[in-house]
Amino acid sequence: MAHRSALIPLVQRFFEHDPVAAVQSLETMKESDAMKVLRALPAPLAVQAFRFLSAGHAARLLEDAPPDIFREILDKLEPRQGATLFLNLSDEDREKFLEHVPEKTRAKIAELLQYPENSAGRIMSTDFLTLHTSVKVKDAIRRIRALSRRNAPASYVYVVDSEDHLVGVINMRDMLIASSTQTLESVMRTDIVSVNSFLDREEVANLLSRLRYFAAPVVDSENRMLGVVKADELISDVQDEATEDIQKMFGAGGDERAMSPVLFSLRKRLPWLHVNLGTAFLAASVVGLFEDVIARFTVLAVFLPVVAGQGGNAGAQTLAVVMRGLVLREIPRGKIWRLILKETSVGILNGVAIGLVTALVAWMWHGNAVLGVVIGLAMIVNLFAAGLSGAAIPLTMKTMGLDPAQSSSIVLTTVTDVVGFFSFLGFAVLFQNHLA
Amino acid sequence: MAHRSALIPLVQRFFEHDPVAAVQSLETMKESDAMKVLRALPAPLAVQAFRFLSAGHAARLLEDAPPDIFREILDKLEPRQGATLFLNLSDEDREKFLEHVPEKTRAKIAELLQYPENSAGRIMSTDFLTLHTSVKVKDAIRRIRALSRRNAPASYVYVVDSEDHLVGVINMRDMLIASSTQTLESVMRTDIVSVNSFLDREEVANLLSRLRYFAAPVVDSENRMLGVVKADELISDVQDEATEDIQKMFGAGGDERAMSPVLFSLRKRLPWLHVNLGTAFLAASVVGLFEDVIARFTVLAVFLPVVAGQGGNAGAQTLAVVMRGLVLREIPRGKIWRLILKETSVGILNGVAIGLVTALVAWMWHGNAVLGVVIGLAMIVNLFAAGLSGAAIPLTMKTMGLDPAQSSSIVLTTVTDVVGFFSFLGFAVLFQNHLA
Repeated sequence: MAHRSALIPLVQRFFEHDPVAAVQSLETMKESDAMKVLRALPAPLAVQAFRFLSAGHAARLLEDAPPDIFREILDKLEPRQGATLFLNLSDEDREKFLEHVPEKTRAKIAELLQYPENSAGRIMSTDFLTLHTSVKVKDAIRRIRALSRRNAPASYVYVVDSEDHLVGVINMRDMLIASSTQTLESVMRTDIVSVNSFLDREEVANLLSRLRYFAAPVVDSENRMLGVVKADELISDVQDEATEDIQKMFGAGGDERAMSPVLFSLRKRLPWLHVNLGTAFLAASVVGLFEDVIARFTVLAVFLPVVAGQGGNAGAQTLAVVMRGLVLREIPRGKIWRLILKETSVGILNGVAIGLVTALVAWMWHGNAVLGVVIGLAMIVNLFAAGLSGAAIPLTMKTMGLDPAQSSSIVLTTVTDVVGFFSFLGFAVLFQNHLA
Repeated sequence: MAHRSALIPLVQRFFEHDPVAAVQSLETMKESDAMKVLRALPAPLAVQAFRFLSAGHAARLLEDAPPDIFREILDKLEPRQGATLFLNLSDEDREKFLEHVPEKTRAKIAELLQYPENSAGRIMSTDFLTLHTSVKVKDAIRRIRALSRRNAPASYVYVVDSEDHLVGVINMRDMLIASSTQTLESVMRTDIVSVNSFLDREEVANLLSRLRYFAAPVVDSENRMLGVVKADELISDVQDEATEDIQKMFGAGGDERAMSPVLFSLRKRLPWLHVNLGTAFLAASVVGLFEDVIARFTVLAVFLPVVAGQGGNAGAQTLAVVMRGLVLREIPRGKIWRLILKETSVGILNGVAIGLVTALVAWMWHGNAVLGVVIGLAMIVNLFAAGLSGAAIPLTMKTMGLDPAQSSSIVLTTVTDVVGFFSFLGFAVLFQNHLA
């Protein structure tokens, strides 16, 4: 025990000195050990460390927390973190959570959860300061000074009129250089950019990123202020959004996480595996059309994986580049055709290069020049189709208002498999008199 | 002409009222048309609109800009935008650009470009305010007031000692509520979190996101201040970083963009297509081992695409979920084995479900129950391997200090193809006396 207590001041110093590094170390530990560390810290430091934890970790630690720390954390909870936390808890723990969270926070959490997933309303912070247009600068400063005692964050003061409509914003610097008897109305900036609470978080991120603002006020349809979305809080949302696309491309569902339970994963993935099975049978039936020629030349079967593999990989390269361009908004609408044309050219040129190599390998491996010609020609057609469809599929989905990520990879593989097998086995039939 | 000039005030109003929407419309237009719009706007508005353009668009527009607008834009350029812009220009335009950019900005751009790609130094803004510890609050305010006239942004004042070392930070709110005769030393916060100029931008983003800071000072190894990285500017970097991974997974290279020239794309993709060709031949040689049994039962060839397709898709689902977990830092080091075990279980259970369906379809399609058993069993082995390797490959690469995204999809497909074909054709050999 003496041994353990000698370590506490050191651990405490680590959390004070570099909270991010300390919390990251905490996240790599077993939950029971992490809990021991949190317990050893003075309560305010433990609560602060808890705030820096990612939502998944925070939820798992909270589930195991002893009642006193549980209550302490819930007392200090910001509504925004509370809402994310709530969604990460199991059903049973959600009840316990709601029971112990202070009434006021609970109401705010419930409010945030009313907004659709991924909307500005869901992720906004509800801690902000609004003052009336007629307030004088000196009174505003007095108000800010009072609030600073309970450590409420405020980088902006939002200004509202008598109907509570948002009409302006003042940053602290403007407040600092204004004369103290001016009214807020005469100091505020009126070229304010607010976002509707239902706006998608990706749009909010784009807006802040373009305008180089670090916060945007969130308003309802009547222009009444509901909250603030801050750039630093959006960073994790933006990562979340971009990596969600990778999952959707392969039909894993946007809401699955690495640590989701097995049954959840099965429920999300099996439907798409069945879709993929259907398309695989489509590709198989193309091969089935050519069973006769395969029966004569079984070596053709050996090359089927090469045809499928190259088409799939070249198509995926194109798909990845186009998807990225869409996320980063680097594809002007007027250039869609140029992009499809470019990817098709890349496909043909890759096809010629890869076709030559494949033809040579096939020739040397099986000592059959005609087989080389067949696979080489098929490669050109296959990679042409891969480039064309790898670009056309997501761009068409986008133009039609669909999510370009949704299962685009499954559709693409079907195209490259069908075209690849058809061209390869088709050329084999054309050349069959010379193949033997 | 009268017609055109009547439109100008309207367009101007649009740019004033909602610059982001206006610039987004601009980006969807042909370059020559976009240039016409920029020319029609008053110079300050054109320069401001230019600032909101994405780097790729900005570079292309700059290449076509008439000399007067070109010079106007370069005069007002921030070093940070200048550096990104420079990298997006063609070699020839880079020379012209450097010739016309003001000396002071050029020096700062050169400085930024010395830092490695994706480092804090490359993306920091060099516009910040430092004051000495002994400065009084009222003098600091006078200084801020003077700076505000030339519209320099300042949300924080950074405080340095006599050796120019960064020792503290003051936000505008603290300045506002301090008494005017205090020194900065007595007002500043000393628990300052600074980042080294060589730190990766992803790490900087994680730091700001965790701490909920909207800016971090960038320092050299001697703790002297070099710049500031802001959360709103990091948003596009974070999107860039996350979508880069999708490209790397398929061997398209992290630095290719949707609008990159054809030759650049070929140079980036062909090497990986050759690697993929090598692995495809590996899979083909597995099929080659079983040519005899395929010669006896050509129907086996028909099912090869089903084996490869399902293994590839199930593996990609796992890979996508694990990659996302790594990017979002949701996988504690102590849980790596649990995750691999979980994905393996999901693989086996998916294998049983998909195996049953595939067996039934094969049986009904070809009226051959043994064929159904062979493909069904192969599916279980195949999806087990897909789950195991889809998780183990990126996690092993990460543990070894490699980039888990780099070509992980190509390695994964090789594993699922080889295991899939070997098990499918192997079971066929085992059951060959009952297959006919």
